Amino acid sequence: MNRSNDCATDRSIRTKSQPATGNPPPSADFLQLNIGDAPAGGRTDWLARQLRLAIADGRLPVGSRLPATRVLAAELRVSRGLITEAYQRLSEDGHVAGSGRNGTVVVAAPIPTRPEAPAGPPPRPLQPTPHLQTLPHPSALFTPTPGTDIFDTLRATPARIDLSPGVPDLAAFPRSAWLRAERTVLRKLPASAFGYGDPHGAPALRSAVADWLARNRGIRADPGGIVITAGTAQTLTLLGQVLHREGIRTVAVEDPGSLGARQHLRNCGLSTPPAPVDADGIRVDELRATGAPAVLLTPAHQFPTGVVLGGERRRELMRWATEHDGLIIEDDYDAEHRYDRAPVPALRSLLAEHVCYAGSVSKLLAPALRIGWVLAPPRYRDALVAAKRFADLGNAVLPQLVLAQLMESGALERQLRLLRGRHRRRRDAMIAAISAHLPDALVHGAAAGLHLTVTFDGGFRDTDLAAAALTRGVKVQPLSWHSQRPHRPGLVLGYAAPTTTDITEGLAILGTALRHM
Amino acid sequence: MNRSNDCATDRSIRTKSQPATGNPPPSADFLQLNIGDAPAGGRTDWLARQLRLAIADGRLPVGSRLPATRVLAAELRVSRGLITEAYQRLSEDGHVAGSGRNGTVVVAAPIPTRPEAPAGPPPRPLQPTPHLQTLPHPSALFTPTPGTDIFDTLRATPARIDLSPGVPDLAAFPRSAWLRAERTVLRKLPASAFGYGDPHGAPALRSAVADWLARNRGIRADPGGIVITAGTAQTLTLLGQVLHREGIRTVAVEDPGSLGARQHLRNCGLSTPPAPVDADGIRVDELRATGAPAVLLTPAHQFPTGVVLGGERRRELMRWATEHDGLIIEDDYDAEHRYDRAPVPALRSLLAEHVCYAGSVSKLLAPALRIGWVLAPPRYRDALVAAKRFADLGNAVLPQLVLAQLMESGALERQLRLLRGRHRRRRDAMIAAISAHLPDALVHGAAAGLHLTVTFDGGFRDTDLAAAALTRGVKVQPLSWHSQRPHRPGLVLGYAAPTTTDITEGLAILGTALRHM
Repeated sequence: MNRSNDCATDRSIRTKSQPATGNPPPSADFLQLNIGDAPAGGRTDWLARQLRLAIADGRLPVGSRLPATRVLAAELRVSRGLITEAYQRLSEDGHVAGSGRNGTVVVAAPIPTRPEAPAGPPPRPLQPTPHLQTLPHPSALFTPTPGTDIFDTLRATPARIDLSPGVPDLAAFPRSAWLRAERTVLRKLPASAFGYGDPHGAPALRSAVADWLARNRGIRADPGGIVITAGTAQTLTLLGQVLHREGIRTVAVEDPGSLGARQHLRNCGLSTPPAPVDADGIRVDELRATGAPAVLLTPAHQFPTGVVLGGERRRELMRWATEHDGLIIEDDYDAEHRYDRAPVPALRSLLAEHVCYAGSVSKLLAPALRIGWVLAPPRYRDALVAAKRFADLGNAVLPQLVLAQLMESGALERQLRLLRGRHRRRRDAMIAAISAHLPDALVHGAAAGLHLTVTFDGGFRDTDLAAAALTRGVKVQPLSWHSQRPHRPGLVLGYAAPTTTDITEGLAILGTALRHM
Repeated sequence: MNRSNDCATDRSIRTKSQPATGNPPPSADFLQLNIGDAPAGGRTDWLARQLRLAIADGRLPVGSRLPATRVLAAELRVSRGLITEAYQRLSEDGHVAGSGRNGTVVVAAPIPTRPEAPAGPPPRPLQPTPHLQTLPHPSALFTPTPGTDIFDTLRATPARIDLSPGVPDLAAFPRSAWLRAERTVLRKLPASAFGYGDPHGAPALRSAVADWLARNRGIRADPGGIVITAGTAQTLTLLGQVLHREGIRTVAVEDPGSLGARQHLRNCGLSTPPAPVDADGIRVDELRATGAPAVLLTPAHQFPTGVVLGGERRRELMRWATEHDGLIIEDDYDAEHRYDRAPVPALRSLLAEHVCYAGSVSKLLAPALRIGWVLAPPRYRDALVAAKRFADLGNAVLPQLVLAQLMESGALERQLRLLRGRHRRRRDAMIAAISAHLPDALVHGAAAGLHLTVTFDGGFRDTDLAAAALTRGVKVQPLSWHSQRPHRPGLVLGYAAPTTTDITEGLAILGTALRHM
């Protein structure tokens, strides 16, 4: 799979203007599509729009056939996934139908569309949050201190606009589908299922997760090897306990990398030496230098930089794991959300003996469900199940069965497609707003996920910027939360949960806050 | 509250015949009720039956008034709760209505009832469980060994009839009410509620639990002091972690006492010295002798003996706690289920500063829900919330809100009343079957709860009896699982979940197994 072209432009995007490259951008005979016309980070959007226009203006009449995805991807030198995605969106709109061998056929012409109106209601007046006005040093809120949890503190702090990362579009939670699935489950459930469950998880969900991972993450897993947990936070704690009991005291982490994950490992008595992340992901030479026997990674969409672990790095990492009997903890937290790039196979699919894979529905449905899964290497499996048993005797049964029902019926894949469309539009709105209000910011990791990261050249502290934004009613996470080593100032901005109106207004406020730094 | 009379007969019941006591049994003018006619352990049942007969045969015509519960309780020298319970059952049947100042009035005459037919289908042939036939030493199944979990092993072992303790009548789970409550919750829930929740638990559930504890357990609690957990097993693990971090290494436990609870504490690095239980509950002098700074107790219905912690013992325990700054962990696991005795106030209601109170819905609704609560003394509260956050970031939100809805609407109290009736009938069936098939067994703790315990004079090992029963298709727990010190052989028998047919057949099989020991 040739993704190198894709990644190079996505890794970091100057929002001002793209520097010209040596070769002319690839183009296709079909509709004279020229990929160079596509905005950075918005190519699926662009392709879908071009197709819609062509259908609307008669260039693609009803009954005509779109090129095979393989062919068009080769001509435009983009991933086949990008083409499939664009076709999928037209299919969801009802303009095209069919796929696979019979090809994709135009079935209805759309009413010509206008770009999404970003006008909305006039921006609300900028009133400082009263609670914070009284704080002498609001930036103290953003400085992690032992004994208090900064996430809890921030969550409890009111803000008009919340651009915290890590949450999908919660308004899209499929309430009716969930309730319907629960009714179906309750109708056929034997009474004994209300008793104490299996600490491994409900067999139905373990099967559904195995199927899901095979379909969506390229992982072939025996349901017997899957353990259901209360989300990745619990997975890390259980695994941390198991590793600690095995005598392991160190788990290397990416830098920058998730503060929350690091806190969970440290709470288990593990130290977390940082290994720097560059444009290809974790520096494996630096990982080797830590001497750690295990490492926590986010290979598909690194948190918070959004880079993809490159092919050579993957091979290097495999060598490290096999040579040192090392353990790779793969946190596949938002791998299903991608917009302008092909899917990245999970490390677990390549090296099951050395990879402990952690996933959850927090980014697919809702963090409030507290359901995740872990595939441990066989040597850790029994200890992990024992840890789960001691933690809580196993997840609640009913929500597991409802989720299994949603997975097996295809409802979760439909939800994912719905989310992709909604998230992509919000992502695009955020990039546009950054371009307008933070024109000197460098944008990272916008090709996938639920957040992007911006960095600045200025010599200020990003905790001060986050605090200034919060006094103006906008909640963001400073990049330094997630950095153990010195780093350029930056912000981690979630775009999946807030509306485009809030995104636009929030970025305008951030721009004002930045100008006052 | 004078309960001494009640307890003395309930604590241990010779099923063969009641030894005659000095004084004649108390009786009432009303209907010439003579409490001496009531079968041991079945007095509420008996009273309800007498009332039904009197209504059916016209002695209590429609419109007539039942005596005040206070009056009848005094005449029969039983707890007022027993009378209220009997009236409640007739009210549920639709035969009487009203209560409080206006009294209870007969509103409809029943069709004369026959005793519940225990005939059912002919007993299934006694086939040994195939899986177990091949085991050379089935009793090994019942011998706890480090590294394996005996509960998991037993749960995974098939049996036709399951008389394991600790589970309510699962067939009574209120599926429709649950689904209705969930629909109501989903209709009004803001999208933000699908995000990461509060590690303390959902505010709505914490309020509902506070109200529940005030109504049903005599505990006045501020919702702010309640932490929602994934059940008492998780509560013990979280608390064990907190105590261990505080430097505590020993938590005394009752002997006999729950094996599962002991395993959870030990997994946190705590030793669990036994303090013997006698007819008044834990021996506080023996607790003092352990030197432990904390103790785990089941005061309302001791597991597995069913004794109630006596008044003098309570006072002694309070003295221990205040003098030694000791911590009492009160596991109030099935306090709401009582049949022939008055409710026992929670220790927490008497000494909040020294009692960490743990409750759950496992015995009220279903263990599969994995929802519990803990009220810690203020000094442990923050550490407990931090432990919960690291464990799983807090319980799943949706089931918490559904449960809150059921608690606030009164549905959970209705469920409890329904369960009491069903459980009581099954309890009576079990006592009758024990009387028929294990005539020399001594029955303990049948006045409340979901299980009873039988002990034998014989010199055999109860693990061998449990194994012999399992080879015949009946699953029970040997008393020795729950004993750290030498004890008479015994079995812990759950009667709440199995049908009366299974109970009767299961006891017949146990009788056969016992005769072959």
